[in-house]
Amino acid sequence: MSGKKKERVAFQGELGAFSQEAVYQLLGRRVEVVPLPSFQEVFQSLKRKQVDAAVIPIENSLAGSVHENYDLLLNYDFRIAGETNVRINHNLIALPGVNFRQIRRVYSHPVALGQCLKFFERHPRLEKVPFYDTAGSVKMIVEERLKDAAAIASAVAAEIYGARILRRSIEDDRRNYTRFFLLRRAEEVRLTGAQVGDADRWKTSVVFTTRNVPGALFRALGAFALRDVNLTKIESRPLRGKPWEYLFYLDLIGHIEEPRVRNALSHLAELADFLRVLGCYPRGE
Amino acid sequence: MSGKKKERVAFQGELGAFSQEAVYQLLGRRVEVVPLPSFQEVFQSLKRKQVDAAVIPIENSLAGSVHENYDLLLNYDFRIAGETNVRINHNLIALPGVNFRQIRRVYSHPVALGQCLKFFERHPRLEKVPFYDTAGSVKMIVEERLKDAAAIASAVAAEIYGARILRRSIEDDRRNYTRFFLLRRAEEVRLTGAQVGDADRWKTSVVFTTRNVPGALFRALGAFALRDVNLTKIESRPLRGKPWEYLFYLDLIGHIEEPRVRNALSHLAELADFLRVLGCYPRGE
Repeated sequence: MSGKKKERVAFQGELGAFSQEAVYQLLGRRVEVVPLPSFQEVFQSLKRKQVDAAVIPIENSLAGSVHENYDLLLNYDFRIAGETNVRINHNLIALPGVNFRQIRRVYSHPVALGQCLKFFERHPRLEKVPFYDTAGSVKMIVEERLKDAAAIASAVAAEIYGARILRRSIEDDRRNYTRFFLLRRAEEVRLTGAQVGDADRWKTSVVFTTRNVPGALFRALGAFALRDVNLTKIESRPLRGKPWEYLFYLDLIGHIEEPRVRNALSHLAELADFLRVLGCYPRGE
Repeated sequence: MSGKKKERVAFQGELGAFSQEAVYQLLGRRVEVVPLPSFQEVFQSLKRKQVDAAVIPIENSLAGSVHENYDLLLNYDFRIAGETNVRINHNLIALPGVNFRQIRRVYSHPVALGQCLKFFERHPRLEKVPFYDTAGSVKMIVEERLKDAAAIASAVAAEIYGARILRRSIEDDRRNYTRFFLLRRAEEVRLTGAQVGDADRWKTSVVFTTRNVPGALFRALGAFALRDVNLTKIESRPLRGKPWEYLFYLDLIGHIEEPRVRNALSHLAELADFLRVLGCYPRGE
């Protein structure tokens, strides 16, 4: 890769966000990370070719799916080209020189605050203050030189902004992981049967709607179950313009060029009003 | 009902919230409404018998499910005793005497702001300001006497706080409905076969987990499909402590005392690690 121009990779949040860790897990450290304020801007920048790839969180093992990103996947024609799981470790972070007793307010993203409730129960003097971003709350405390405040964020965020970790791993539940997708423009992703090898090492993601008839979802899942294709996730989202009808997002184990998977998808296509393959990518560890 | 003490019914939000409209649709106007700041407090107040019933939003036809309430339904042992759909109508509301040209900022709940994007595109001078509640934003503008600000909320909120509607129905999509559940304490709900009558006029909601084996969800849905029981909604939520395993919430058409539904549920119980009936209630219109 030497001599090549570094890949530019967009993510939502400030430098030091968990999404940045996901970028490094997926692509290594030799990329240029491009932090952006919103998921919408991350998708836009990939579409406008301002970046080569994007990394987005899709679900957290405690908080559930990031529904905004499911909706954006439908509205843009990108391909999921990889996935990875990041262990979420929440740390209490403050200005250097500030000690724990001085802290009165704790800033972080509402999801992060909600994942450290036992810590707040043990320290009732601490006020939770919702903020737009975990790493962004560290940045703000350092820029504003706040001495009675701390942030909850990753260890990397503390390092980047020159802040200090006062308490490590204050999350309620250690089994806290976020799953991220690597996205690329459709025309830049090539899939071939030659990749298949051990098909269990691949995942394929699709989105579809069923006809609104009894048993429609059961039959759609049958396309996979009758071929022993293992599903790992199903997510439903409202179908715009048709109240109380739904889009379904499925993740399955297998490569799209495998006959079993190819047949299951053409069977699903017979049953579905709409079907799109979102990507086929190596399984995260 | 005359002579009886009025029922007290909790909902999340300020007076004039869409949830209050749902209370009236479900129980009529002869109840005492109890507005509370958070869904958690709504559930707590029902548990502590501070109220007789609670009304919560469960899904919006554009924004999707209210996942926090799905999680709370699991953590409290209440019964769903009714459902209703409220048409969501967003109005631009300001102090009496203020005219549209004076407005610079528009306060509302982020979901409501996000449902009026075309209005904001037509009026680029207006700044969107996220606020904790739709009706609460009207209340605040009236209390603070803000002359350069408006709120987006229901017509009822304008009436309650003595504000004025400047623009009606500014939502992007008219097919905007929110579905609400009426909740009661389990021991106060009685279901009998005598109710069944036209079974299609009832719904039953359940939550379950499957064993983590290939085809498990397909077989679970089979318990219903093979008996022609029609499902209207499936929602998955993360299972705490088991990353990448899920709880499934299902709504089906039918009464729990119908043989078809009873048999489907005992079939599901054979397949499920965990199964709970959340309620059986008359279908909303």
